[in-house]
Amino acid sequence: MTQFIGTSDLGALVRRIGIENFLVGLATYIEADFRHWESFEKSARLASHSRDGVIELMPASDGQLYAMKYVNGHPGNTREGKLTVTAFGVLADVRTGYPLLVSEMTLLTALRTAAVSALAARTLAAQHPHTLALIGTGAQAEFQALAFKALLHIHEVRLFDTDPEALDKACRNLAGSGLAVRRCASVAEAVRGADIVTTATATKARVHVLTPDLIEPGMHLNAIGGDCPGKTELHPDIVARASVFVEFEPQTRIEGEIQQMPPDFPVTELWRVLAGTATGRRSASEVTIFDSVGFAVEDFSALRFVRDLDRSEGHDIDLLPELDDPKDLFSLMLPPMPVPAIAREEMLSS
Amino acid sequence: MTQFIGTSDLGALVRRIGIENFLVGLATYIEADFRHWESFEKSARLASHSRDGVIELMPASDGQLYAMKYVNGHPGNTREGKLTVTAFGVLADVRTGYPLLVSEMTLLTALRTAAVSALAARTLAAQHPHTLALIGTGAQAEFQALAFKALLHIHEVRLFDTDPEALDKACRNLAGSGLAVRRCASVAEAVRGADIVTTATATKARVHVLTPDLIEPGMHLNAIGGDCPGKTELHPDIVARASVFVEFEPQTRIEGEIQQMPPDFPVTELWRVLAGTATGRRSASEVTIFDSVGFAVEDFSALRFVRDLDRSEGHDIDLLPELDDPKDLFSLMLPPMPVPAIAREEMLSS
Repeated sequence: MTQFIGTSDLGALVRRIGIENFLVGLATYIEADFRHWESFEKSARLASHSRDGVIELMPASDGQLYAMKYVNGHPGNTREGKLTVTAFGVLADVRTGYPLLVSEMTLLTALRTAAVSALAARTLAAQHPHTLALIGTGAQAEFQALAFKALLHIHEVRLFDTDPEALDKACRNLAGSGLAVRRCASVAEAVRGADIVTTATATKARVHVLTPDLIEPGMHLNAIGGDCPGKTELHPDIVARASVFVEFEPQTRIEGEIQQMPPDFPVTELWRVLAGTATGRRSASEVTIFDSVGFAVEDFSALRFVRDLDRSEGHDIDLLPELDDPKDLFSLMLPPMPVPAIAREEMLSS
Repeated sequence: MTQFIGTSDLGALVRRIGIENFLVGLATYIEADFRHWESFEKSARLASHSRDGVIELMPASDGQLYAMKYVNGHPGNTREGKLTVTAFGVLADVRTGYPLLVSEMTLLTALRTAAVSALAARTLAAQHPHTLALIGTGAQAEFQALAFKALLHIHEVRLFDTDPEALDKACRNLAGSGLAVRRCASVAEAVRGADIVTTATATKARVHVLTPDLIEPGMHLNAIGGDCPGKTELHPDIVARASVFVEFEPQTRIEGEIQQMPPDFPVTELWRVLAGTATGRRSASEVTIFDSVGFAVEDFSALRFVRDLDRSEGHDIDLLPELDDPKDLFSLMLPPMPVPAIAREEMLSS
């Protein structure tokens, strides 16, 4: 049987374990997979574009497990109360090709994005960061705040969004989180004196959410909103002066902040820093950028983590037939055999 | 909510409707989709090869619906009582990107393969065929026999397999089908005088299941076992002298019987015959071949057909979140709100 984890199952699972514990565990899995990055089969996404959006399939395999994420992006969905981006995923056994797990991934992607952000910041930020500025308080905001609290022991989060309702929502959801939450009136107010800045804004254009005058020495910028062609958040001069780290360079060149830069602009893949083959931050004063667009290996890690958790949430689904004789597929078309009375009694008493 | 149809659901659905009715309905959907073939976005499969097998993703979209099939091929699986090929699929709404249906497709692929075979034969075979020879009585055999009975009103089926147990299984499963079933001792005995010959053998090599001496004028050959590089069933002289019809030429050149032929060997895509823009059979005496390898549009049709059926089988799964505020994904991490007493009473009484 194949395991199924729906959205309510995943919500219940995270609540039972505790979201911060979940994020820490997830980051551990992502880090482990990033450290053996070269053993992964990495393909381009398979995208189907239409007038209203895109449907993408994102596979990744390390030769033992195979993961596939289905993800859509439909900006107009919010007009009818639907989500712009939803996702689900499948984890399979490479040796047999059998799916092991089908899971919702709308929530799981939000969790893994936050875990990757915090993992990158723990690797790249200056020591002992205290304050996170969060520019853009949409669906990702609270996950970011809690991942930075759990992995980097951030004390304070400063929030800004151009939409006051989104700002209210994030402040409300983070009340009681143990973080000092500051509602800011501008990007500048949020960023001033912050150790780490996450940009997670929604505008589908090349905008300058951050400008060079706002950037202080030693800051770590976690740029996650610029994640598709034509969508960036950082002024190019910020990027030009910083050390830039990416997930998978060929993909980030097209989708990330560095789409603004020349094709030979130097970047370092994060996995190399984690594996010890590349240098991360070089000085306390340099500005580091994690130019994150999301990558299939992170989804692989997230599905692997959920599968390994000791849990009661979820249930089995019969996605595949179980046959005594693999050549007798047709037997599934025949009426189920009546269970003999003796066997039935055994089943009831066992 | 997303609909889920498991293997037992699909079995129950087919039994309730009747397998022949199901095959006829499915063929109608496939024919309709083949007739507007040019409106489909057709991609290459996205394959992940490993030592033991392959996992493939097969997407297709007509601009309104999007279908994706996950299918594995692992020949060694039978050693541990598992199937060589299993599959499941997803049907989604292109406008929103939301998945509508997740379905098992191991059974459904067997059904659609048989429906396509019979549809092609109804289009290409000489008039009033009476007898089907089935060479290879593995997992596909009974589906073939019943599809040809339902769509072409075949009276007699002649069965041959090198594995006597597989032959017994097919004879047993087809007893009571209304077909005259003849167990044959050789390929030649099965093929002699048959109007249509289906080859569905398993050997992963270039073998000659059929040789030119066995072929009679006017026969229609339905070659479905030769479906991957290095695996063919027909002697090349048979192919050279016949009119050959395929699903999607670029794929069949690599996977089908015509991988034995020069790259410019003429073939006709079946959809053109169904759409009336190409000629099928030209005379009562010519030999026609449907060189079938399976194509994503057929899986699209199968999922669309199952979705449209009036049925009680299957159940809803919460693969995607439902949110009042699409920016408040985090609300799913919070404990469920207790239902106020008055609302609870209303829910109970409604």
